Parts: sequence; C-alpha cells; structure tokens
Amino acid sequence: MDKGYWINRRSIRNFLTKDVDDAILFDLIEKAAKAPTTGNMQLYSVIITRDEARRKQLAECHFNQPASKAPVLLTVTADFNRFEKWCRQRGAKPGFDNFESFVAAFLDAVIFTQQLNTLLELNGLGCCYLGTATYTASRIGEMLKLPRLVVPVTSLAIGWPADNGVETDRLAPGALIHHEVYDDYTEDRIDEIYAPKEALEENKAYVRENSKPSLAHVFTDIRYPEKNALAFSKDFYEYIKKQGFSFPEK
Amino acid sequence: MDKGYWINRRSIRNFLTKDVDDAILFDLIEKAAKAPTTGNMQLYSVIITRDEARRKQLAECHFNQPASKAPVLLTVTADFNRFEKWCRQRGAKPGFDNFESFVAAFLDAVIFTQQLNTLLELNGLGCCYLGTATYTASRIGEMLKLPRLVVPVTSLAIGWPADNGVETDRLAPGALIHHEVYDDYTEDRIDEIYAPKEALEENKAYVRENSKPSLAHVFTDIRYPEKNALAFSKDFYEYIKKQGFSFPEK
Repeated sequence: MDKGYWINRRSIRNFLTKDVDDAILFDLIEKAAKAPTTGNMQLYSVIITRDEARRKQLAECHFNQPASKAPVLLTVTADFNRFEKWCRQRGAKPGFDNFESFVAAFLDAVIFTQQLNTLLELNGLGCCYLGTATYTASRIGEMLKLPRLVVPVTSLAIGWPADNGVETDRLAPGALIHHEVYDDYTEDRIDEIYAPKEALEENKAYVRENSKPSLAHVFTDIRYPEKNALAFSKDFYEYIKKQGFSFPEK
Repeated sequence: MDKGYWINRRSIRNFLTKDVDDAILFDLIEKAAKAPTTGNMQLYSVIITRDEARRKQLAECHFNQPASKAPVLLTVTADFNRFEKWCRQRGAKPGFDNFESFVAAFLDAVIFTQQLNTLLELNGLGCCYLGTATYTASRIGEMLKLPRLVVPVTSLAIGWPADNGVETDRLAPGALIHHEVYDDYTEDRIDEIYAPKEALEENKAYVRENSKPSLAHVFTDIRYPEKNALAFSKDFYEYIKKQGFSFPEK
C-alpha cells in the first residue's frame, strides 16, 4: 500500500508549467467520488480553473501565495444546489437551506477533497490546499458564478511537482489521542507536546526573524491574528447566508 | 497503488467482535496525521471509545444505527483547545474563539478523518462515518467531557468487517465537475444525472416501500426532513457557541 507515501507525504507549492491532462483529473475525480458521502447525496462540486486570466484573479483571492500559481486550481464547493434542484423537479419539498445542511455539505466536500488529494499525490502530482478559500469565499463565489446553496470550502492547487516539497513536523500521535474521555492537557503536558516543534531550527529562525518572544507569538501575532479571523468570520458567515443557508439566529 | 481499492471501496456497517489493537490504531493515526493541516496547527483530537457501557451510550447518540455497534468508536473533534493552551502558556494572546477558527478546525478534523478512514480500509479494517455526530454534538460532548474550543465533527465506527458491505452508486464524474465557471444544471441535465440512480432496483424498492411518488421524496420526507434539520441546526449552533466559538451576530 505504498508504505513510503503515507510516511513521507508533503504538500507541493512549486509546479512545472507542464499541463495536467483532463483525462487524469476526470479519472481521479471519479475514484475520489467513491469516498463516503452523507446519505449518498454527494453534496459537493468541483470547479476546474485553467484559464490564465482566471487563475491570476483566483490567485489574488488566495493572497498570491506560491501554490496559487499552479497550472490548475480546483475550487471544491459545498453544493446542495444540484440535489435540491432534483428534489424540486420531482415535486418533493426540500428543506436544505439551513445550517445543518451546510455542515453536511461541508463535510462531504472536505472528505471528497482529501480523497482526491491522496489520489493525485499517489499518481505523482503535487498538491497544496488553499485554506484561504473560506477567507474570500464571496469574491471566489462571484468569480466562479456560484448559484444559491453553493459555497467554496477549500481549494487545491495542483500540478507536476517542481521540487520535493518541505517536510513538516507533526505532533506525536499520543498528543492527538484521548481514551474514553477527553483528558485535558496540563501545563507539563503542553510543554512536552510542543517542545520538539519549538526546538526545530526552522521554527527558531521564524521566531528570530520576527523578533517574537516565542513560536506561539508568531502564530497569534503574525500568521493568524484575531483581527483577520474576525473579519474573515463575518465575511464567510454573511456569504453562507447570502447563498441561502440560514443560521438559527433568534 | 491498490488500484482495486479505489474503485471498490465500501463502508462497512457490520463487524466481528474481534478487537482492534491499540498498536494498529496508533500507527495509522500517526500516518493519518501526515495529512495536510491548516498552518501545521493540527486543530483536531480523536477520542477512542472501547468501554462497552460508553459505546452503548454513544450508539444512542448515533440513533443506534447498525454501524454504531462497532467494537471501537472514534469521535473526531475540531480542537483549538490544545493549541490555544500552548499559546497562552507562552504568553501569546490567541484570538481563536471565532467562527473562522471553528471552520479551520472543522476542515482539519475532516481531512484527518478521511485520511485515517483510507488507511484503516487499506489495512483491512471496516469503517463507517457516523454523520450523526453533529446532530447530537452536545450530548456527545458532555459524555466525552469535551472542554472549551472542542466540538465533535464526525465519528468513525471501526472494526474487522463481518461482511463485504454494500456497493453504493455514485453520480457520473461529469455531474460533479464544472469548467472555469459553475455551469448551472438545466432540467434536462438534472434528469440525465439522476436517471441511473432512479433506475436502480434497490432505489425503486425504497420508493415502493415508503409509498412515495419518487426517490427524491424518500430523501425530503423520510431521510432528511426539514423539521429534523432545523432542530439539529439549532442544537449544533448553540453548542458551538457554548464551546466558545462565537458567530458574528449583530
């Protein structure tokens, strides 16, 4: 089962200009769609962007991060539009314009994306998630002409790898696992879990370059500041509502 | 790359009583954690339930669906608790108690779950997602003693398969793919896309058994009625807030 792959997988952020054939994409999308899906409803769609001008616009929505320059960008959407249209066309009365239905479609879309990511990588392609899709969902949605009940949830930048990517550290599995009930982390445990990450030369360099007191400060002050998260929260929340999924507000 | 697996994979809902060793679980969780994660923050945790009394209680939260009788239940949570504790302990000021941070953790948790699902299946184990985790997240959270900033997003029932599972149909890949912009579905296209599903003998049987005019009615009236979705929406929304992630309400 490709043992090496599961231990060594890496995201790829730099790609050759060589194109990715539609035939490969279609074949792997078909296989990825065998992944589990809520009640077999397949509540997702994928928009393939190849056109250069569109890719440039889309890369701007992804803050021009290196991976967004890939030859193919896939925007994966939570999609209740297709299923709802089918229900209406058969005279049934769908009730999918709510938060729980959005959550189900979000889940479906991410399961599908990860299955596709794995298949692409196993076939030699390089991939990188662009989590920025939810930050600028409204602009992306407008660009891609998304109708009601369709919301971008993530993007995959894909292409043939121009390098081997960078190995990234992970927490020890014990740090992620709880037995029977959640065993909340003590101060000592937190120190123990994050020590290897803090000891990495590359992480020490981030701390120095940014003149911060710790690696944690790099995350809170530079990479994921609250100000941005609150602005993105508001935009995404409003866009989900605009696309027809209502939140249970009072 | 295990070609057969990607075409034939099936969810398993019936399991042998034979136990699943911790060693296998730990090994595969370690490999699954190599999956992509937002800014390498690994915003998820997994709670392993083996205890019989707890499994029974948890199965009730999953409406006692067949798969919920598995020998091992994994509850995968969106988890900003661990990362936030680390930030606070280093004197940094985290701002992760918002909707966008919940979305990032949700994404991380599902990517991890799907990677784990694939690894378990490739190693001969049977798995079934329990999407019901978000329906009764509040009860599950209480049972598993989840702290602030931790929310169940999905569950995996796992065990050694007692049967081969049931093959489920999927839409043709063309139905899921859009080029450059979203090409909204015409009535003819909807008919074409859903015709193979409607023609399946097992689906015809559902329609007859439930005395419904169409398969779509089985979904809207029986499997996913709006009344339930609205109740689950409200519960999940309130629970996410209770766990400390605020929505950008006015």
